[in-house]
Amino acid sequence: MFEQVLKDPVHDEILFEDPWLWSLVNTPAFQRLRRIRQLGTSYLTFHGAEHTRFAHSLGAYETMRRVLSHLQRECGWPTEKRDLQLALAVALLHDIGHGPFSHTFESILGVHHEDWTHRIILEEPQLRARLDEIDDTFAADLVAILKKDGRFPAIENLISSQLDVDRMDYMLRDAKATGVSYGQFELARLIRSFTLVDERVYVKQLSMHTVEQYLLARYFMYVQVYLHPVTVGSDVLVEKILMRVRDLLKAGMEFQIPPTLYDVLTADIAPINAYLRLDESVLLYAFHLWADAADVVLADLARRFLNRRLFAPVVRPELTQSEAAALRTMAKAMNFLPDYYVTGRICRIPGYEILGQGINMVDKAGNLTDLSQVSKLIRTLVPSQEHRLFLPKEMLEGTDEPLVRRIQSIVYAGL
Amino acid sequence: MFEQVLKDPVHDEILFEDPWLWSLVNTPAFQRLRRIRQLGTSYLTFHGAEHTRFAHSLGAYETMRRVLSHLQRECGWPTEKRDLQLALAVALLHDIGHGPFSHTFESILGVHHEDWTHRIILEEPQLRARLDEIDDTFAADLVAILKKDGRFPAIENLISSQLDVDRMDYMLRDAKATGVSYGQFELARLIRSFTLVDERVYVKQLSMHTVEQYLLARYFMYVQVYLHPVTVGSDVLVEKILMRVRDLLKAGMEFQIPPTLYDVLTADIAPINAYLRLDESVLLYAFHLWADAADVVLADLARRFLNRRLFAPVVRPELTQSEAAALRTMAKAMNFLPDYYVTGRICRIPGYEILGQGINMVDKAGNLTDLSQVSKLIRTLVPSQEHRLFLPKEMLEGTDEPLVRRIQSIVYAGL
Amino acid sequence: MFEQVLKDPVHDEILFEDPWLWSLVNTPAFQRLRRIRQLGTSYLTFHGAEHTRFAHSLGAYETMRRVLSHLQRECGWPTEKRDLQLALAVALLHDIGHGPFSHTFESILGVHHEDWTHRIILEEPQLRARLDEIDDTFAADLVAILKKDGRFPAIENLISSQLDVDRMDYMLRDAKATGVSYGQFELARLIRSFTLVDERVYVKQLSMHTVEQYLLARYFMYVQVYLHPVTVGSDVLVEKILMRVRDLLKAGMEFQIPPTLYDVLTADIAPINAYLRLDESVLLYAFHLWADAADVVLADLARRFLNRRLFAPVVRPELTQSEAAALRTMAKAMNFLPDYYVTGRICRIPGYEILGQGINMVDKAGNLTDLSQVSKLIRTLVPSQEHRLFLPKEMLEGTDEPLVRRIQSIVYAGL
Amino acid sequence: MFEQVLKDPVHDEILFEDPWLWSLVNTPAFQRLRRIRQLGTSYLTFHGAEHTRFAHSLGAYETMRRVLSHLQRECGWPTEKRDLQLALAVALLHDIGHGPFSHTFESILGVHHEDWTHRIILEEPQLRARLDEIDDTFAADLVAILKKDGRFPAIENLISSQLDVDRMDYMLRDAKATGVSYGQFELARLIRSFTLVDERVYVKQLSMHTVEQYLLARYFMYVQVYLHPVTVGSDVLVEKILMRVRDLLKAGMEFQIPPTLYDVLTADIAPINAYLRLDESVLLYAFHLWADAADVVLADLARRFLNRRLFAPVVRPELTQSEAAALRTMAKAMNFLPDYYVTGRICRIPGYEILGQGINMVDKAGNLTDLSQVSKLIRTLVPSQEHRLFLPKEMLEGTDEPLVRRIQSIVYAGL
Repeated sequence: MFEQVLKDPVHDEILFEDPWLWSLVNTPAFQRLRRIRQLGTSYLTFHGAEHTRFAHSLGAYETMRRVLSHLQRECGWPTEKRDLQLALAVALLHDIGHGPFSHTFESILGVHHEDWTHRIILEEPQLRARLDEIDDTFAADLVAILKKDGRFPAIENLISSQLDVDRMDYMLRDAKATGVSYGQFELARLIRSFTLVDERVYVKQLSMHTVEQYLLARYFMYVQVYLHPVTVGSDVLVEKILMRVRDLLKAGMEFQIPPTLYDVLTADIAPINAYLRLDESVLLYAFHLWADAADVVLADLARRFLNRRLFAPVVRPELTQSEAAALRTMAKAMNFLPDYYVTGRICRIPGYEILGQGINMVDKAGNLTDLSQVSKLIRTLVPSQEHRLFLPKEMLEGTDEPLVRRIQSIVYAGL
Repeated sequence: MFEQVLKDPVHDEILFEDPWLWSLVNTPAFQRLRRIRQLGTSYLTFHGAEHTRFAHSLGAYETMRRVLSHLQRECGWPTEKRDLQLALAVALLHDIGHGPFSHTFESILGVHHEDWTHRIILEEPQLRARLDEIDDTFAADLVAILKKDGRFPAIENLISSQLDVDRMDYMLRDAKATGVSYGQFELARLIRSFTLVDERVYVKQLSMHTVEQYLLARYFMYVQVYLHPVTVGSDVLVEKILMRVRDLLKAGMEFQIPPTLYDVLTADIAPINAYLRLDESVLLYAFHLWADAADVVLADLARRFLNRRLFAPVVRPELTQSEAAALRTMAKAMNFLPDYYVTGRICRIPGYEILGQGINMVDKAGNLTDLSQVSKLIRTLVPSQEHRLFLPKEMLEGTDEPLVRRIQSIVYAGL
Repeated sequence: MFEQVLKDPVHDEILFEDPWLWSLVNTPAFQRLRRIRQLGTSYLTFHGAEHTRFAHSLGAYETMRRVLSHLQRECGWPTEKRDLQLALAVALLHDIGHGPFSHTFESILGVHHEDWTHRIILEEPQLRARLDEIDDTFAADLVAILKKDGRFPAIENLISSQLDVDRMDYMLRDAKATGVSYGQFELARLIRSFTLVDERVYVKQLSMHTVEQYLLARYFMYVQVYLHPVTVGSDVLVEKILMRVRDLLKAGMEFQIPPTLYDVLTADIAPINAYLRLDESVLLYAFHLWADAADVVLADLARRFLNRRLFAPVVRPELTQSEAAALRTMAKAMNFLPDYYVTGRICRIPGYEILGQGINMVDKAGNLTDLSQVSKLIRTLVPSQEHRLFLPKEMLEGTDEPLVRRIQSIVYAGL
Repeated sequence: MFEQVLKDPVHDEILFEDPWLWSLVNTPAFQRLRRIRQLGTSYLTFHGAEHTRFAHSLGAYETMRRVLSHLQRECGWPTEKRDLQLALAVALLHDIGHGPFSHTFESILGVHHEDWTHRIILEEPQLRARLDEIDDTFAADLVAILKKDGRFPAIENLISSQLDVDRMDYMLRDAKATGVSYGQFELARLIRSFTLVDERVYVKQLSMHTVEQYLLARYFMYVQVYLHPVTVGSDVLVEKILMRVRDLLKAGMEFQIPPTLYDVLTADIAPINAYLRLDESVLLYAFHLWADAADVVLADLARRFLNRRLFAPVVRPELTQSEAAALRTMAKAMNFLPDYYVTGRICRIPGYEILGQGINMVDKAGNLTDLSQVSKLIRTLVPSQEHRLFLPKEMLEGTDEPLVRRIQSIVYAGL
């Protein structure tokens, strides 16, 4: 009997009973996820947030395993071993395309990690060979599920919806790693509340408050962790470093850069094996190189990141257009190129999305409805957004400009 | 009023009330600890073990802060603000000299992280400038405490003994990160059990069982986590990679290597600023480079590490000398250079050390004794050791050699 | 140095540094709280909910101690030792008047536990003697604080408001004991967010989301624990037992009853020493006696409680008046006296209360506002209520009445 | 599909999938366990220790359920549904004979709770009717397992050995309730380490350190919780109260006593229905009655218990015989009848028992051995004992006797 058990801070134990699934974990493409943090630059705000996409992918797998075990017992689905393997494999592989400091990197590259996930599943030879062991449409079916083409509706719901194993694992994991209580919810009960109606996942209305708790936990994780002003400021810094690098490359400037990174940044369509060598160690090494670059902007930005001299975040700045212009002028006067040093950001706090993709509920009599129909609390959980401004701390010090004094008066406290 | 609070998975909150101490955290030398894992290669065994020496150093500081707060209340010490600052600063800085994959790296370099800690405290300009703000012997006093020259006996006890804030923090932190319960003990009670006798730290005999629990927790952390065969095998792999690099350098072979690493590996005495640029991102980047090296041994070892194809650990092999020789011959026949691919290791499980450095106890009547005098359980906690053998898994497969069959029969299960 | 430490599942340790406060714990009136559960009949729903008002009172004290320690450090208040003692003593004693199955008992007796708290503080000789050790207006001042006469505004805020040490402790404690995650919030951060403005307690606006988390946790504790239909049904059962006893006493019927209970139930104003002998062991013993009573209603109700054959809860019954009448007729036909066996209840879920008693916020600039002005989420947290019906399960079985079938169709699932 | 889920602080959820097993929970004999605390008088030392034998019995059931699920998967046992039901039912019912303040009560009554468990299983009509639903030898088989007659060796091992579901649950539960970390161990791993050899339970040698951790946790629970001097002193107090009651009854003295208690105390063989009405509420009520008794010894002892004026524990008194005699004389002189007020106790700390009932280990090659053969640590865990003396605190105050001064000097601190 095959049994592989991994000790886990969130689920206690992660269990593999199928050697084929375990073999996916042991592919180089999957092991690479060990070198990419789950929360990007959050570790600069919460020093515990060093957990990786490797750990989260295992956790999403384990959550899926428990959900399927419940559904098999209660609804007799999945009946086919192949469906079981599809669901477990998609949970394991759903993040395999993530790059270093993922969202930031994507915004520079203009690609999405989802596209990379699809490409890696279909094209990375070792992984693909494993998937083909099941059959030669297995890889394509995984991508179809991730693209939600509708052929595997229940698995689609479980891997990608407002209540999926991805979010269920990462909220608990991010809360545990950072040390906050905001992301806690009743996992076991939530899992038991799942049922199937017409091959789609529904939640029993009896557990409505448990779903409310889960969605509120998500709200708190956004406002307290994911969108923490210091973290967003760190993301902005990474983005500005990569922007400067791209601009210098365009301008034909010479400077040191790891070849893999160069390949990915300059290729129209990056080769998959170059992309798979990119991880956060490569980026951090690049930052080390750039800290010594001749270009003062690049060198300064890289040093800021390595030594954690981050941008100061200003929350809800509400500047007039002329104030914004004055700010850029002031930056320039202090030798801070405004394009790299004065950055506005709109941070979006997700609410409950009703249209298209709500959370389906079913009551004891079999009546179907949307969560928002039965929970007043959730109806009020609408998306919102917050304007922020990121500046070098030096711009807020040692000057008596009225504009700076105004900004100082709204600077986010304690940072 | 200055107050800087860091959210922490172990202590809930880490509190800075002295802006000067907080300024130490913000030096580049200290921020570098974010890029060095607390448990080296353990993350290849326990995927949660990604926590850093940065987090642990903060935790040791917080533990020291709580111990001092207790001692001030109960014993009126420290009376001098400078002593308080010495104790807190030494807790913060005690690991500042650690390199990437620390113990392994040291064994190749032939230096100790303690020496680097002393050098960095005395010589790193930015840190030293901060320390000199107190007075110009402060840095030297910190080193004196770490060297145990005897002038600050209580602080020496608290930072480096069998019951110090270093161990107290790392056991709890390593247990939390890996997800095991083995490292738990009653921290608050242990702290309250501390008292001073003749300027030295003693533990109240009333809390003897709490100290027993702490020492047993340490025993379990060694046998279950720190000396886990997979982890030791990963350490061996890193060591063999670095050995091969050193051997190739000696032989004058050309291959890619990050310049900082080259400087540190080749200098008689590495320059401090080169050493401070070395972190695990640099080493991991080097492994990426070496995975493509022309030297097949180096390339193979580097790929094994990156893709987690680790050596198979064999526990308590008890081979005869001729069997050991036969094993090396067999390795060679399979194109595995034995010096890099067949490694014996003795793993030492520490016990309670009575000589010189015991744990001092004091009963209500003021009688002084050593823990081992009052605890029978602890008297039996003597050091022990275990022989292990590390080999490529391939050597244990696809052959019918009796020697291999013998080894297979003793291979550590489930790995 | 006096130090008394109690191990606590919520706060880890509860610390007494003032022997006078510890002496309050050792009065018989306070020790009696060991025999009264914090959550009344909730243990019949959540088997972990056996924790007592004794434990909660200690926890409220410890929370107050930590809040005051923070306020002293940050705002320099309390300056007077007497104020410190008032605040700590009122936290310790605020629940001392609670009777067995408190709210139920009160509804029968027509008194409030608050009045008993005031009487006990003023009149119980041993406790009063301790309080008089401070000075002879100390006891009266404690009652004044509980009555909110306005002379000690900050202490009033801390012991009785929407964000007080009472709620802060009981939510965490009830969550821990029952095993649910619903009541978790960031205690340490909430405490640090407290500040004083004009001798009143304000919360720093920076911690707004932490207050939101606390209020949402309260919401979830109400809907999932405090108002759990099985628990409310158990309360109804206790109430009906006591109602039957009162009715039998009025009718001059003879039956066994513990004398202390008789005294309290029949006196116009119960003597304080009789009340103080009443605890849940006395009530449970009375239930044992009544299980053998000649009166079949009393005997049946008592046995139902002891053997946990509780009323079936029907949630949101929405019966017409004629249906309600038909239900009583049906009950009578089955020999269930409707006054004791058919009970409607309106359960109120508290929201955020703005009028009069909101949560005061202060921003960095010193602007004062109410939480509801800055938190959209909290503005939507309005009180609500739910109608429920409680019946013997037998009424829902073995009959084919359309009314019963209608009720069955709305019966709360899984109970 | 039947599913009954109970929220639990230790196991998160306790799951019933067999309605017959759930029906056992709903018998009056089982519900009575709600009124008996798991740790007797420990709540007077650890205020969290209010958890009941009801909760523990459910926890032992849940642990057994998980063990059996593992064994079915790994060893294909139990194959028969009846064996599964036997194992689960015996876990649920193993403590059903416990009386109030169990061990104390037994020492007075001269009976064992085990005998009562057997009688209740065989004779209590409602429970027996449920058991007979399986078949008419089921009840007898349950008793046979508890008596270890050898017919169901694996189930016997699982319910009663040094590593059984009873201990596994109560150590975790007692640790959680009291708030200490001493009782923690790796439950999931321990369960997975179980296997069957020749129909007996063995532990895989690979998990040896996990078993060590479990046994050390037991050691710490004994020295820190179960044998806490204050708790033992509270037990002594209950015992002395019951002794006094028995002596007064023998002497024909009249005083109030609950009839059920009278029946049980005076009958040669107590009737089962009288015993089943005895719970801690009855005893506490009796203590209330006795607090007003005319007999001053009984009244004083009862008041001491209710108001927590416990005996002072003296640890390791090592008195000479003449000192012991002097102590009794002194007690008498202070109007403390020595038989009730001066009590010596020997407290036994269990070690690892090798003879007869060791923990069976099996290595990968199938070699069988005893834990003590492979674990040096466990070999040293031998039973030990400690002498203690319990006295009224008043005897240690306000006198200048050299004997008292000697005792004072050895009084256990802080109590």
